[in-house]
Amino acid sequence: MKVITSIKEMQALVKEIKKDKSIGFVPTMGYLHEGHIQLMQEARLENDTVVVSIFVNPLQFGPNDDYDSYPRDFERDQNICSSEGVDIIFHPSAEEMYPSPLSVKALVQRRTNVLCGESRPGHFDGVATVLTKLFNIVQPERVYLGMKDAQQVAVVEGLISDFNFPINLIPVGTVREEDGLAKSSRNIRLAPEEREEAPELYRSLLLAKELLEAGERSKEVVIAKMKKHIEEKTTGIIDYVEIYSFPELEEYERLEGKIIIALAVKFANARLIDNLVLTVE
Amino acid sequence: MKVITSIKEMQALVKEIKKDKSIGFVPTMGYLHEGHIQLMQEARLENDTVVVSIFVNPLQFGPNDDYDSYPRDFERDQNICSSEGVDIIFHPSAEEMYPSPLSVKALVQRRTNVLCGESRPGHFDGVATVLTKLFNIVQPERVYLGMKDAQQVAVVEGLISDFNFPINLIPVGTVREEDGLAKSSRNIRLAPEEREEAPELYRSLLLAKELLEAGERSKEVVIAKMKKHIEEKTTGIIDYVEIYSFPELEEYERLEGKIIIALAVKFANARLIDNLVLTVE
Repeated sequence: MKVITSIKEMQALVKEIKKDKSIGFVPTMGYLHEGHIQLMQEARLENDTVVVSIFVNPLQFGPNDDYDSYPRDFERDQNICSSEGVDIIFHPSAEEMYPSPLSVKALVQRRTNVLCGESRPGHFDGVATVLTKLFNIVQPERVYLGMKDAQQVAVVEGLISDFNFPINLIPVGTVREEDGLAKSSRNIRLAPEEREEAPELYRSLLLAKELLEAGERSKEVVIAKMKKHIEEKTTGIIDYVEIYSFPELEEYERLEGKIIIALAVKFANARLIDNLVLTVE
Repeated sequence: MKVITSIKEMQALVKEIKKDKSIGFVPTMGYLHEGHIQLMQEARLENDTVVVSIFVNPLQFGPNDDYDSYPRDFERDQNICSSEGVDIIFHPSAEEMYPSPLSVKALVQRRTNVLCGESRPGHFDGVATVLTKLFNIVQPERVYLGMKDAQQVAVVEGLISDFNFPINLIPVGTVREEDGLAKSSRNIRLAPEEREEAPELYRSLLLAKELLEAGERSKEVVIAKMKKHIEEKTTGIIDYVEIYSFPELEEYERLEGKIIIALAVKFANARLIDNLVLTVE
């Protein structure tokens, strides 16, 4: 496994690799967890060469966000990548990625004013800009992203199709505990009784799915029943429960086609998110 | 020579070509003239495959600009490309390039509020966005742009370096008439006496060069002498005469390093621009 920190070196290596091999790419901010490992395993199955980037991107943090205190443990990350058969870690410094103020950035003008994006102005511009750079550095055939952050998947889908990157986006399903709770590093912050209630979030998504399968087509009715379920079964405070088209993230009058049902619920020390993407006939 | 109108087809062809051949790219809005031909010839010398795009990009026209009446003559363009040994013309429709409202665009946040950019808000965002798309479709090793539009070269230099496109930008020198006037399709709109005066614009640039070579380092002094020259020798009205760093297009206190001296002068029916890029020791 190679660790590369220079953009120039990475691009030279990619040029060689691409002559006869495919590249699968997993972009990360490091501090790798089970979700990342699943992405790496998926990439490992489908590509000759697997590249993981580890870069805490200052551009996607807001002024009140935790860029400086964001957890970093490169040695541990390196061991994980090595065990998962990763070929190359791309691990540039902030100085290497942003040597001078950017004259051009990617501006995300749709898909951001809903769900979690609403409370994070500029966040997805930072994500789209760093991915534009990383896509041009790594030049992968396929990029792997977790569906846990479905809004990010939607934004990147738009980035790839609007900018015509010759890249296939592979969204990878959310990894869940046995009781259905979406895995997250935040789950350990739940009190024992909160941890017991938490699977009800996923159950509310399954309830919505059942309603839709039974013919319900009113967004308001589905959302109201989900909210009622969450309020009755948990002590969490609902941040949002929403349904949009996917990946456009636009409002529906009448539900049809590919949709996302997404929620965010605040417990005492952890805000949990989850979602389900499905097709309504 | 192939003519391709589909993005998908172009990307498939590019993938084949890039296995063992280099691609040189000349992006144009068609209605090709001598300036374009020089770019094609330069590209022909340095690459295995030459791709010319012909696409009148709606995104870079302002609401008062002439998108609908912008001249188009594809048959003539095709003949020119064919004579110059172009391998592929990429000629997509606006519908092919912009099938739905863009969720992401390239935002140019530097290098635009000076020179001609000042009077064309959003113009360079449109240029940077379409070039981001075209670079991902054509995936060239080298892209050729004329130095006549030096601000465009500066913006594209920033686009390539900030987004890490694996592309070399090759700026090609301005083609001039024997008397020094920069070639332009607008020159035919000059009255006979204006045409006789017009070379004085280039002479004012050469005057600035001489002053710098003789040790002058005050931007104000150089600009004042250029303006005096233009005012005395022509009937044109000066729009701007400016000096900036190149390609950053930033203000100088004391001239040094790579600089651009640029001017725009209005005659009765034609606004002419010209520039000189040079290094001050």
